[in-house]
Amino acid sequence: MMDILEEDIGLMDITTEGLGFGAKAAKISFAPKEEVIICGVDLVEEMCQRLGLETKRFKQCGDRVSANECVLEAYGRADNVHKVWKASQNLLEFLSGIASKTEKMLSLARLHQPHIELLTTRKIFPRTKALALKAVFAGGGAHHRLGLYDSILIFKQHRVFFPDEAEFEAQFAQMKRKFLEKKVAVEVENYEEALYFARLGTDILQCEKMDFEMLKRCVSLKKIFPSLLLSATGGIGEHNIEDFAKTGVDFIVTSSPYHAKPSDIRVTIEML
Amino acid sequence: MMDILEEDIGLMDITTEGLGFGAKAAKISFAPKEEVIICGVDLVEEMCQRLGLETKRFKQCGDRVSANECVLEAYGRADNVHKVWKASQNLLEFLSGIASKTEKMLSLARLHQPHIELLTTRKIFPRTKALALKAVFAGGGAHHRLGLYDSILIFKQHRVFFPDEAEFEAQFAQMKRKFLEKKVAVEVENYEEALYFARLGTDILQCEKMDFEMLKRCVSLKKIFPSLLLSATGGIGEHNIEDFAKTGVDFIVTSSPYHAKPSDIRVTIEML
Amino acid sequence: MMDILEEDIGLMDITTEGLGFGAKAAKISFAPKEEVIICGVDLVEEMCQRLGLETKRFKQCGDRVSANECVLEAYGRADNVHKVWKASQNLLEFLSGIASKTEKMLSLARLHQPHIELLTTRKIFPRTKALALKAVFAGGGAHHRLGLYDSILIFKQHRVFFPDEAEFEAQFAQMKRKFLEKKVAVEVENYEEALYFARLGTDILQCEKMDFEMLKRCVSLKKIFPSLLLSATGGIGEHNIEDFAKTGVDFIVTSSPYHAKPSDIRVTIEML
Amino acid sequence: MMDILEEDIGLMDITTEGLGFGAKAAKISFAPKEEVIICGVDLVEEMCQRLGLETKRFKQCGDRVSANECVLEAYGRADNVHKVWKASQNLLEFLSGIASKTEKMLSLARLHQPHIELLTTRKIFPRTKALALKAVFAGGGAHHRLGLYDSILIFKQHRVFFPDEAEFEAQFAQMKRKFLEKKVAVEVENYEEALYFARLGTDILQCEKMDFEMLKRCVSLKKIFPSLLLSATGGIGEHNIEDFAKTGVDFIVTSSPYHAKPSDIRVTIEML
Amino acid sequence: MMDILEEDIGLMDITTEGLGFGAKAAKISFAPKEEVIICGVDLVEEMCQRLGLETKRFKQCGDRVSANECVLEAYGRADNVHKVWKASQNLLEFLSGIASKTEKMLSLARLHQPHIELLTTRKIFPRTKALALKAVFAGGGAHHRLGLYDSILIFKQHRVFFPDEAEFEAQFAQMKRKFLEKKVAVEVENYEEALYFARLGTDILQCEKMDFEMLKRCVSLKKIFPSLLLSATGGIGEHNIEDFAKTGVDFIVTSSPYHAKPSDIRVTIEML
Amino acid sequence: MMDILEEDIGLMDITTEGLGFGAKAAKISFAPKEEVIICGVDLVEEMCQRLGLETKRFKQCGDRVSANECVLEAYGRADNVHKVWKASQNLLEFLSGIASKTEKMLSLARLHQPHIELLTTRKIFPRTKALALKAVFAGGGAHHRLGLYDSILIFKQHRVFFPDEAEFEAQFAQMKRKFLEKKVAVEVENYEEALYFARLGTDILQCEKMDFEMLKRCVSLKKIFPSLLLSATGGIGEHNIEDFAKTGVDFIVTSSPYHAKPSDIRVTIEML
Repeated sequence: MMDILEEDIGLMDITTEGLGFGAKAAKISFAPKEEVIICGVDLVEEMCQRLGLETKRFKQCGDRVSANECVLEAYGRADNVHKVWKASQNLLEFLSGIASKTEKMLSLARLHQPHIELLTTRKIFPRTKALALKAVFAGGGAHHRLGLYDSILIFKQHRVFFPDEAEFEAQFAQMKRKFLEKKVAVEVENYEEALYFARLGTDILQCEKMDFEMLKRCVSLKKIFPSLLLSATGGIGEHNIEDFAKTGVDFIVTSSPYHAKPSDIRVTIEML
Repeated sequence: MMDILEEDIGLMDITTEGLGFGAKAAKISFAPKEEVIICGVDLVEEMCQRLGLETKRFKQCGDRVSANECVLEAYGRADNVHKVWKASQNLLEFLSGIASKTEKMLSLARLHQPHIELLTTRKIFPRTKALALKAVFAGGGAHHRLGLYDSILIFKQHRVFFPDEAEFEAQFAQMKRKFLEKKVAVEVENYEEALYFARLGTDILQCEKMDFEMLKRCVSLKKIFPSLLLSATGGIGEHNIEDFAKTGVDFIVTSSPYHAKPSDIRVTIEML
Repeated sequence: MMDILEEDIGLMDITTEGLGFGAKAAKISFAPKEEVIICGVDLVEEMCQRLGLETKRFKQCGDRVSANECVLEAYGRADNVHKVWKASQNLLEFLSGIASKTEKMLSLARLHQPHIELLTTRKIFPRTKALALKAVFAGGGAHHRLGLYDSILIFKQHRVFFPDEAEFEAQFAQMKRKFLEKKVAVEVENYEEALYFARLGTDILQCEKMDFEMLKRCVSLKKIFPSLLLSATGGIGEHNIEDFAKTGVDFIVTSSPYHAKPSDIRVTIEML
Repeated sequence: MMDILEEDIGLMDITTEGLGFGAKAAKISFAPKEEVIICGVDLVEEMCQRLGLETKRFKQCGDRVSANECVLEAYGRADNVHKVWKASQNLLEFLSGIASKTEKMLSLARLHQPHIELLTTRKIFPRTKALALKAVFAGGGAHHRLGLYDSILIFKQHRVFFPDEAEFEAQFAQMKRKFLEKKVAVEVENYEEALYFARLGTDILQCEKMDFEMLKRCVSLKKIFPSLLLSATGGIGEHNIEDFAKTGVDFIVTSSPYHAKPSDIRVTIEML
Repeated sequence: MMDILEEDIGLMDITTEGLGFGAKAAKISFAPKEEVIICGVDLVEEMCQRLGLETKRFKQCGDRVSANECVLEAYGRADNVHKVWKASQNLLEFLSGIASKTEKMLSLARLHQPHIELLTTRKIFPRTKALALKAVFAGGGAHHRLGLYDSILIFKQHRVFFPDEAEFEAQFAQMKRKFLEKKVAVEVENYEEALYFARLGTDILQCEKMDFEMLKRCVSLKKIFPSLLLSATGGIGEHNIEDFAKTGVDFIVTSSPYHAKPSDIRVTIEML
Repeated sequence: MMDILEEDIGLMDITTEGLGFGAKAAKISFAPKEEVIICGVDLVEEMCQRLGLETKRFKQCGDRVSANECVLEAYGRADNVHKVWKASQNLLEFLSGIASKTEKMLSLARLHQPHIELLTTRKIFPRTKALALKAVFAGGGAHHRLGLYDSILIFKQHRVFFPDEAEFEAQFAQMKRKFLEKKVAVEVENYEEALYFARLGTDILQCEKMDFEMLKRCVSLKKIFPSLLLSATGGIGEHNIEDFAKTGVDFIVTSSPYHAKPSDIRVTIEML
């Protein structure tokens, strides 16, 4: 967490230094202005402690918190309270925004399909993956892939390197054998591709930007390939996730929660 | 830049490893799907080079780029092309989104006040400051403060540590003397505060969430205090920046560009 | 790679400094004393280049190299040649040792089952994971799991937290739904456990330290559960891998290659 | 220690996350399955504490521990217990293996020469130097050289840069004067070299891969050069260290302990 | 602080290891041999605590401490006391030297001008900025600029890139508008330059190596430009700072404190 | 080197950004204003190259350079020239100052004793060890110890942990046996201590703050102990090093060069 503080504080807090009240006793507390799924409160607690503040934490990541309910208080020197202020507020606001949106989207989807899952993509603002995924989990979602290293997902950008289907199919089979502990996912754009890859033994079809009709046709492949899983991806948000859920896909793959509006967190600083 | 690649690649790219085409010759190219102010193309070039790809760069940060105009091409082994793909696309999309929104907001504001400036806040997703500010500059904006270390900005959260005005005023004067190479900014919420701080010798009044009437009254203080600068902040976006510009403030302080929708960048991967 | 050099060089090379020949022109070359599967030659090339040496590389990771065949030459200042010497020799010897043993074990296993795979465990000397796995891949193997983050593997140490089977089974089902893009593996110690977990819908049974009879009984579960995969683990090495392969398991999970004897690499340093 | 945990945990522990028991109270304890010289128990304690576990440590590095004797217990949340499990087991097993083998080899050597020392080489798996040397010390050994920076050791690979003996000898004398706080060691391969370097004023002769007869002849040089120290190196292990000790060398230089079989440490995880 | 300890300790403390008394109980205490403005005592406390020592701190940074007055005591294992000894002594001596000299120079200057400030330059030994500036503040000074990132200062080395005055003046005006929250400083070498830049609207004139006569003439510009600030820089030390103060400049810009003689700190180590 | 640039540049160079000439072609060159032993020119070259500048280097570390002789030129974008300017000037000035003073002191000492050596202490400004030692070597000196890890040096602060001489002597002997590849140095304060430690078999006596008479008496111990080495330390500078050299000590241990006045390096920046 120290890098997040360092990013904001740098070599000093000139304002507090200039105003000279750093040694006074202070209290800082955090409460959302509206109901949220809170996230990051453990990290903020750690940031406070690293700066020598004593803390009382009332909530944990993933808790639903009402407007004006205090999630954390910290006590100590005023200069350290000011050092932690904006970095911690920022963290809580961004992460709670993502958690709350994840939870909202998932709830909407589950109105129509109780076991649907919401998994988020690799399209994250660079350097924010660890934080953003923490918030997705707090909201009840999970990651689609952590990166290139933890799952197999074939795009057409991979397939261009194969001059013909036979060569691709041979290599596909070999990959399945070598990485036999992994499921194999393929991004498909239409029913024909979906059928082709289901026949090849693909575990997961990621249906990219299909209309609902095509999506339902793809889902119907589950009748022939009972262990096949299907996801919908591309352009999914709060406004349309219910429609996607109705198609019967097993899960949604989306970047939408990363772009959530930050939650509004009120920070109160008092002299003790 | 290596940390951005590392965040996405981790220990390996299983898919490309499994498909076994890593040693083939490949080309990757980047072009926006709609007109953008491009940003991050230099960083992507560096990422490509670090992975051993040869590059041709056609644009630089801050350039206005038409839809489908290529900004960068890179050539080399297919495995390295796949390693750089999403991390670089992500970077370009997020940064160009911010740059384009910054430019848009600034253009709107300048319709009404040719010399108004747009400065962005410290409310940035943790760990993204360096990248996000680069994009703000590409769009013609600038930073409001880099952090606690480079400017003086007094909030009421500082003033609570002073039991009375006299003590505050004495300390305020001392701070101005000690940090005499810095301007002093104060966040104010109404005309009375604005008048009080202007009289104290504040260089910059940051007018927080005022209505346009009150904002104009504050701006009128410039007649009495000719070197006084005023900014508007709080809830400013594309939809209302023109109204703020009309009030006559010297500059806008906003976080809005950080939440820009990422630009859509088409990435083409070909076998050579 | 710079940390590997730094670990060996520290603040200076006293011997070469003391002998004063650092500015002379030198050549360093690397060749195995016996046939090996070479690994690390790309990293050594990078280390040489970072120290300003020019390089000629004749082999790549995974190549079978005969005794005395040169894999890499580098040219430059004698002090830089001496700085790279032992760190690079060490790297080549350790990695080629692992690659060669991996290849040997896999070849032995495939005498009996052409499609069996050899995957290596997380029991790696701390801080050597990236290097050791690189060598395993060079030898034709793959990783079993990169760490806790990329796969699901249930041990009895997880199951002790469930007071009864019903609670475990409910949670097991929920986990399968949430992480539906992952296969679920369970470590089992006897046929009864194997049967129980196969019925629960486990994708992979990791058979820990079973005798060959019991292992074959477990493998026979594939007749009932056609998509079930089985691995053998525990105490597997060059001396007995063939027997394990004969049981019909789909893959071997082993730490054995990590303990390979380092290959013997001859390093020749000449004055030019 | 955090890098060792991070290497294994990455962004999350999916299994424990999926099974949902992370908040339960747990205990983890460590005991060797056979008698060992334990090493790394302090580092494991620190790893536990960094993850918020409370610890009780019963042994320290270098202690001889009987089979099944508990060396450390830790208490806390089950998710943190699972995060620390394998990384700490790995660490204990590798380090205790090295410590135990060091102690074994040293004991064997001292049967024949009570003051002989066992020093280990720079041929360590890259990135493991700090850990491996800690274990060597726990076993009663010491380091031969930390790296290029802390001692002078001349190989023939240094001498090739001198066209004639006169030039070498002049430079040798100058080095001895400049680095007068260091002893000078030279690796020699036969008696003639040993005699030549003893005459030059070398402090330590490192006898590389000599047969026992030649080694004894070299040791006899101590009669002429009373302050001369001699070591044997090359191919020394448990099977032959006694014979080397009998030759009368002052110390053994070996990499053998680094390749020790990891000790078997039983880890018990319980629900509280 | 760990990097400072690591720089001195490296992989081990051979002397204490060799003498074998590491587990004994020890006390270390620090007291200046002459009166100083102490600085770094908080960092030393943190270093002690990181090594497991218990601490009692009697002074804080910026305190005036008499000769032989104890500033900090720490208790714990003798090996950790020896590990912290020289690194902490070094830190205290260098920082207290800088703090004391800063305070001395400032006191001398204020004999003649009660509100003059002493700001220190960017000419700091590379890698010591954070430490050195901490000491400057402890002595009552402040930083002139943290680096290139926090202030605007125009040298003639900037002006050479403008072919004529008109182009420079246009750009100067634009910079003032864009970075309107910053004051603009210019380094000038004579009265004519000073007048020119005062007329352009410069906020601060940094008068480089002027004689006292010229400096006074520049200061007299304040009558025409009441908000103009002036500093003197170049060759200012304890011997002449009073003369500079007498010229009426608002502040002194100097590197002199960075070159202060380290304070003499007595470190006492006892066995308990 | 990037950390040195980063320390000065931070997130941007506001001045150059504001003046808008960054893309112009520029040249920067470095030349001392007085004769120096240059040091750091290789590091500055690397810093220039990292910023994309092309370089011509005319001198190397340790060269004697006349006043106004150019040591390095670099060419490229003006913004990068301004980024490298002060960080590189600083580096050259500090390191050349140390190198020049080292060379001066050593030359003075050798007037009286041609083979005397000058070794510098561990009392270095924290975080500057690597840079400062580089400069000491450029000036013909060497390091006394890199840190606690590379040599044995006994102070009275070690001896306080031994209740009686017998226990100390036993441990001293054991240490000599265990670290037999190291020389053992002891700091002594008078002749009696010197004699005592010479008899114990100490290799090096470090004579701390002795007067010249006592120092000569200690040196006379070499007649009895021919391999004994002696150094003088404490309060040695340019003004008195000749007197120390005359006492016959083998080497000088000093921190004096670290406090050298930085050399004056003229930096010229031109538009091309």
